[in-house]
Amino acid sequence: MTGKGWLETIHWDDDGLVPVIAQEAATGTILMFAWMNHDALIQTVQTGKAVYWSRSRKKLWHKGEESGHTQKVIDMRIDCDEDVLLLLVEQAGGIACHTGRQSCFYQQFQGDVSTGRWVAVDPVLKDPKQIYQ
Amino acid sequence: MTGKGWLETIHWDDDGLVPVIAQEAATGTILMFAWMNHDALIQTVQTGKAVYWSRSRKKLWHKGEESGHTQKVIDMRIDCDEDVLLLLVEQAGGIACHTGRQSCFYQQFQGDVSTGRWVAVDPVLKDPKQIYQ
Repeated sequence: MTGKGWLETIHWDDDGLVPVIAQEAATGTILMFAWMNHDALIQTVQTGKAVYWSRSRKKLWHKGEESGHTQKVIDMRIDCDEDVLLLLVEQAGGIACHTGRQSCFYQQFQGDVSTGRWVAVDPVLKDPKQIYQ
Repeated sequence: MTGKGWLETIHWDDDGLVPVIAQEAATGTILMFAWMNHDALIQTVQTGKAVYWSRSRKKLWHKGEESGHTQKVIDMRIDCDEDVLLLLVEQAGGIACHTGRQSCFYQQFQGDVSTGRWVAVDPVLKDPKQIYQ
């Protein structure tokens, strides 16, 4: 396989996107989940830093462009179905979430089917007002 | 919030699905990525074992029903956007992938934008022929 065959290997969805899981390489913590299109992935590989596609803003999102919380890519994987990417990253500031937490997955399920609730269990490391000035 | 409010908190996509990341609790390894619908999630909570929605087979998929490689749920998280779930699991047999590997994310990106390729770097722990007899 030559040229950009590695890009064509990926099974892009109907919107031309692929889901991406970002995991902190040093701790194994799952930091966030996002999406990439062709351009985002190419720029990620070219720069060595995570670039996503923002589905809400409909534009490329250079992770950390506002917060400074960039993600340096250490390793990149694709799954057996070739439709999901995994990035192992070095997370600048140790904070991936816009709420100022390490990870976006800070709400834990507690209870059972009838009493279930989502409870924020992880600490805010930095006030978002100080992150997005 | 009472009753099944925790289910309504989730932002289900247009197909009534939510993406799910499964991570091995003991090692931090990301095992796989799948989808759940309402029923799959309810059955996951009720049984304490991962039940997914198979988009290809269009039916509930009790993980491990054929392979024996069930996933006992240790912890369940939702992200800040409330549209992605994370399961921390105990993986029976230490194998999540149908290829007989621990994780589905066994193909590593190597090279750069023009020379890139995906290379299988993780070992097959058990021959799939022995898993699916």
